[in-house]
Amino acid sequence: MSQFTAQDLDYMSRAITLAKRGKYTTTPNPNVGCVIVKDGEIVGEGAHLKAGEGHAEVHALKQAGAKAAGATAYVTLEPCSHYGRTPPCAKGLIDAGVSRVVAAMVDPNPQVAGRGLAMLEAAGIATAFGLLEPQARALNTGFLKRMEYGLPFVTCKLAASLDGKTALNNGQSKWITSAEARLDVQRHRAQSCVVLTGADTVMVDNARLNVREESLQDIDYPQSELRQPIRAIIDSQNRLTPDLALFKITSPVIIFRRTIDNSAQWPHFVEQIVVPEINGKLDLKAVLNKLAEKHCNYVWLEAGATLAGVMHEQGLIDEYIVYLAPKIIGAGKGLFNTTPLSAMSQIPELVFGDVCQVGPDLKLIATKEK
Amino acid sequence: MSQFTAQDLDYMSRAITLAKRGKYTTTPNPNVGCVIVKDGEIVGEGAHLKAGEGHAEVHALKQAGAKAAGATAYVTLEPCSHYGRTPPCAKGLIDAGVSRVVAAMVDPNPQVAGRGLAMLEAAGIATAFGLLEPQARALNTGFLKRMEYGLPFVTCKLAASLDGKTALNNGQSKWITSAEARLDVQRHRAQSCVVLTGADTVMVDNARLNVREESLQDIDYPQSELRQPIRAIIDSQNRLTPDLALFKITSPVIIFRRTIDNSAQWPHFVEQIVVPEINGKLDLKAVLNKLAEKHCNYVWLEAGATLAGVMHEQGLIDEYIVYLAPKIIGAGKGLFNTTPLSAMSQIPELVFGDVCQVGPDLKLIATKEK
Repeated sequence: MSQFTAQDLDYMSRAITLAKRGKYTTTPNPNVGCVIVKDGEIVGEGAHLKAGEGHAEVHALKQAGAKAAGATAYVTLEPCSHYGRTPPCAKGLIDAGVSRVVAAMVDPNPQVAGRGLAMLEAAGIATAFGLLEPQARALNTGFLKRMEYGLPFVTCKLAASLDGKTALNNGQSKWITSAEARLDVQRHRAQSCVVLTGADTVMVDNARLNVREESLQDIDYPQSELRQPIRAIIDSQNRLTPDLALFKITSPVIIFRRTIDNSAQWPHFVEQIVVPEINGKLDLKAVLNKLAEKHCNYVWLEAGATLAGVMHEQGLIDEYIVYLAPKIIGAGKGLFNTTPLSAMSQIPELVFGDVCQVGPDLKLIATKEK
Repeated sequence: MSQFTAQDLDYMSRAITLAKRGKYTTTPNPNVGCVIVKDGEIVGEGAHLKAGEGHAEVHALKQAGAKAAGATAYVTLEPCSHYGRTPPCAKGLIDAGVSRVVAAMVDPNPQVAGRGLAMLEAAGIATAFGLLEPQARALNTGFLKRMEYGLPFVTCKLAASLDGKTALNNGQSKWITSAEARLDVQRHRAQSCVVLTGADTVMVDNARLNVREESLQDIDYPQSELRQPIRAIIDSQNRLTPDLALFKITSPVIIFRRTIDNSAQWPHFVEQIVVPEINGKLDLKAVLNKLAEKHCNYVWLEAGATLAGVMHEQGLIDEYIVYLAPKIIGAGKGLFNTTPLSAMSQIPELVFGDVCQVGPDLKLIATKEK
């Protein structure tokens, strides 16, 4: 890493902070931040905030104006090289006359994949990449997973008592976790592309699965820019009916099914998608592939023990976020219904990440080992 | 709190740090620290390290020597006023000529209970108490519970997967948590007065329930001073037999039973205690009362789901320490076998305390609400 100086590190760190500004709204695009530095002074800053609007480099170059000539640009992701909804950022940087571009990482998007840096090099601009790459990757786990594997990044949300129970034996589950934890869930939903669940959960709770905007008034983000995630439901036995609360909110719904249900009149924002079966059950990986094809980077899974169990067993969950309430339920319902294993060695190891307190509850994060 | 200065706070804080030196060995006595200050300088320090040996004040006064005259003594617990295995510390402070004594808290021991401070006042020494009292109480939760309620402080140790499972359906449980977590358990055992479990656990694992001294070599404590906790087993159906590994280690064992078992020859270090029944089960509160009568401050409960469940249901557990492994077991055995509840409102709220990572696992602490 000797190619980078301490100043390089500071500026890239700033660019990463900027990138987070778009976390509620850039998808399907990645979060990107850009800092332009001339003679030891930041002359331009920018972040990509919304798909279809200016990329981070465009905002930063606009702010820098003529000072961009001879400057160094720090970007958290390789500048794009293709004409999409906006012209290529590599061309913008060349036109502005920057003399050096440092990227935290190469863009795995097959439309870029090194071509942005090559375009800059061909124009005589010094380039480097790999500075704070792990932090830059963490900004865009969903975008990267989709680009690299054709699958969205799946977070499984769980709420349980300290002893891992989600409900009493009689089914009562309101409320195990606190209002603060439920508010935190709303923030996660708002940052996701899809909220995925099973028909059971929708029917038992008559759940709407939307983001309650009034619950996000304290986030540092323009309310008008927030978007509703797609609501996706696995309904393999066509049990959903149009009278459910879910369908009273005009916002996209995708229902994954074995067969199209033509027996009812579905609202215009409802799409039914037929998914193949594997061993008599819907192919959940195919469900995720479909969501990736629809440019979904992040899936927020809020499922009951059956769907969560199958998703877990099939290795489709990237991250587990567990809200643990300081209560012991004892006899009650568990988090995952799975096929019993015969040896401890069959259990994959996860890795604990951040732990924080949310109201009286603990929020634990565990991810697949790298 | 205006009676205390910032200096008072600093010296009492130091005394609390000193008190912790005895955490492996003072029971049944409390942990106590003492600092003696003359003209803004610490002239004597001490901690109570072992029952029967010098109290904190004795060590500090010895170090201070003639400088104790006119000094202020800071003690984390009211100086004792009675002749026990050592003469009263209040008398020692009077004889040394200190002019002021600050105690973090009054000693609830009925043999003291304010008499130490009264003795000092009667000798013309200025006294004050209540400085850092919560911190001082935290040093001696076990001693205080025993003095105030006639019961030991009970910590329930739990080890489970992230989803609250202790074993596979087939019973396999080795090892859910890490070697680091198991080492941490050894440290807790070494600080406890009793390791309590059920006959089932002893028989299934052929558990020895002792402190493996070799596992404590890295603690900052003289190995020769460590003591083995009493091993206490609930064996209501007289199922234990003298051939178990437990009885191969010469160290006190108490077996709580419905009736004395005279059918076998028990080692000399084994005591059988008959406990009354409540609703056809051993009265577990009576078990704890017996242990308190034997001067046990801290009970470390390492039980299976049945005993843990009953202890929990009867409200006998003060603190839950949960080692959570970053694994999901799904189908498996739970932490507590309890009678199903009918409403969430019946579940007592606990409070989460410290969280830390122990190897790959998380260690969570939850306690009863104050």
